[in-house]
Amino acid sequence: MNLETIVFENKSLRIIDQTQLPVNLEYIELPALEDVISAIKKLKVRGAPAIGVTAAWGLYIHALNLHSTNSLNSENMNIAARELISSRPTAVNLKWAVDRMLAAVKEYFNDSGKLLEKLKQEAAKIHAGDKETCSQIGGHGSTIVPAEAEILTHCNAGSLATGGMGTALSVIYKSAEQKKKVHVYADETRPLGQGARITYWELEKNNIPVTLICDSMAAALMQQKKINLIIVGADRITGNGDTANKIGTYSLAVLADYHKIPFYVAAPVSTIDFSLDCGSKIPIEHRDAGEILDFWNMPKEADFNVFNPAFDVTPHDLITGIITEKGIITKPINTNLNNLIN
Amino acid sequence: MNLETIVFENKSLRIIDQTQLPVNLEYIELPALEDVISAIKKLKVRGAPAIGVTAAWGLYIHALNLHSTNSLNSENMNIAARELISSRPTAVNLKWAVDRMLAAVKEYFNDSGKLLEKLKQEAAKIHAGDKETCSQIGGHGSTIVPAEAEILTHCNAGSLATGGMGTALSVIYKSAEQKKKVHVYADETRPLGQGARITYWELEKNNIPVTLICDSMAAALMQQKKINLIIVGADRITGNGDTANKIGTYSLAVLADYHKIPFYVAAPVSTIDFSLDCGSKIPIEHRDAGEILDFWNMPKEADFNVFNPAFDVTPHDLITGIITEKGIITKPINTNLNNLIN
Repeated sequence: MNLETIVFENKSLRIIDQTQLPVNLEYIELPALEDVISAIKKLKVRGAPAIGVTAAWGLYIHALNLHSTNSLNSENMNIAARELISSRPTAVNLKWAVDRMLAAVKEYFNDSGKLLEKLKQEAAKIHAGDKETCSQIGGHGSTIVPAEAEILTHCNAGSLATGGMGTALSVIYKSAEQKKKVHVYADETRPLGQGARITYWELEKNNIPVTLICDSMAAALMQQKKINLIIVGADRITGNGDTANKIGTYSLAVLADYHKIPFYVAAPVSTIDFSLDCGSKIPIEHRDAGEILDFWNMPKEADFNVFNPAFDVTPHDLITGIITEKGIITKPINTNLNNLIN
Repeated sequence: MNLETIVFENKSLRIIDQTQLPVNLEYIELPALEDVISAIKKLKVRGAPAIGVTAAWGLYIHALNLHSTNSLNSENMNIAARELISSRPTAVNLKWAVDRMLAAVKEYFNDSGKLLEKLKQEAAKIHAGDKETCSQIGGHGSTIVPAEAEILTHCNAGSLATGGMGTALSVIYKSAEQKKKVHVYADETRPLGQGARITYWELEKNNIPVTLICDSMAAALMQQKKINLIIVGADRITGNGDTANKIGTYSLAVLADYHKIPFYVAAPVSTIDFSLDCGSKIPIEHRDAGEILDFWNMPKEADFNVFNPAFDVTPHDLITGIITEKGIITKPINTNLNNLIN
């Protein structure tokens, strides 16, 4: 599939509006910082790596806009960076990408021309780097996929979540390229249905056999021995390997442990936040009750008590391995994660 | 709350159409057997005990209709019984209630007048018995509810699932009556949202504090020690205590085991099918893909692979106890279940 989730050309940033999938495949233009932030908040672009790439281009677009009104300076860029980072608190790739862009600002703040050039280069590098990273994750990950694989995945960690071919799904694409017989069960992923709307659609477009299930059905499939591998993405991994990912991931990890099914996380090294030593320190985004209620046509006037965290944290001892572009971090993940990176 | 899920008066059977909740509280008339079967298949009435009560009244209504055309006989009643039983394969209370009605048919087949009288009595007895049973389940169950309880439940095992005040929810109602401080987390219960649409609504009407969650969020709550008890209903329990209940129940049982949270099943003895010695023999109903897909506004023309079992089976070793009208069956459930009943 030659779909590009994020496209930058001719000073214009376009993304697929993922809230419209699978009904409409529609690109939208993000001409200003507010549009970028709004697209991230409303999940028009989602997936930790894709958010990072979009934010990088967004800062470059913002710099161009500031330049056109003679207000390109460090202060304005720093304000924009803070706004961007706060748009979604859990995924750390966002901060990682913004920090890389800010480093350029710091270096070239007194030369607008050079700064613009450098920001464009840096955003392009982040974007290209993400593509390469995805491909490497797929390559490393494919080594743990059996010749006949029944793989469960949650949410969407595919090409629509990254600037490349995905993280968890990249492993699946590479395995299929290697002629392994792969079938995927896609959790629909309540409340927002990234699995139903996006993963199913993306896998089908790539000719990977896929079956859609409700999140609550995964356990029954495991009990019936219909799943032999679980791979998910990550929004933030702490220094010890604890992993924040889409709500429902922790549930799968516990179920995998009980059924003795390998449970892998696939993510670029940029997802690892060494500033945090364990998962309980990851800020978890809580989202609007409407995301759950609207589906059931609940009376609008009523006051509902709803618990709607967007992410949960899987402790590293429930993770079989973390698949990165540098290789697979196996158990003990705590120690090996530090060895691999350093 | 004085809501009656199933009402029989003046030769007329009415039920709340649960597919309309919580938007509309609407009773519908079931004047003929076809209407009863259709209401059961379309889940206008659902919950194993409520299906049993409705089927009993349905057979009486059918007998009245047959009588009015001079065709009330054993053969026609047996045909109707078979059709009713096949309308939903997993819940065993349906068969249990129909068998009780058929026993009357067998005894009085040669006296239409007496047969009609006896069928009415039997249906009324099943209905009244279910009310009493619910109350007793609540009483026994309340003994295991702590003074401050954070209870998770799945699907709807409340007054809308029975002819009385419910099974799992009866335990909660009784505990609240005893001034225990009870708060409930209701799983929304994909695909059909019985938790979101029915349990939430029912608990709120009864002034029980309740918070709605997606099924995939239960694990995170357990991890955060926000749940200290899980109670669910049952559609069929086999001789060894294995329990079929709404899809997603098995997942909760495994999660409860991992987090050391007591996991109880509440059900009348009529839910126990001693003809089956273990859960793998329970027929599991698979339902239409549309129940999952329609929610996401999926393109109608496309061909989707969907796995949509309505129930799963929780093995008895994951169950802390089964709360029945005769008392609580504790571990070892296999042995104690037989002792309690015999």
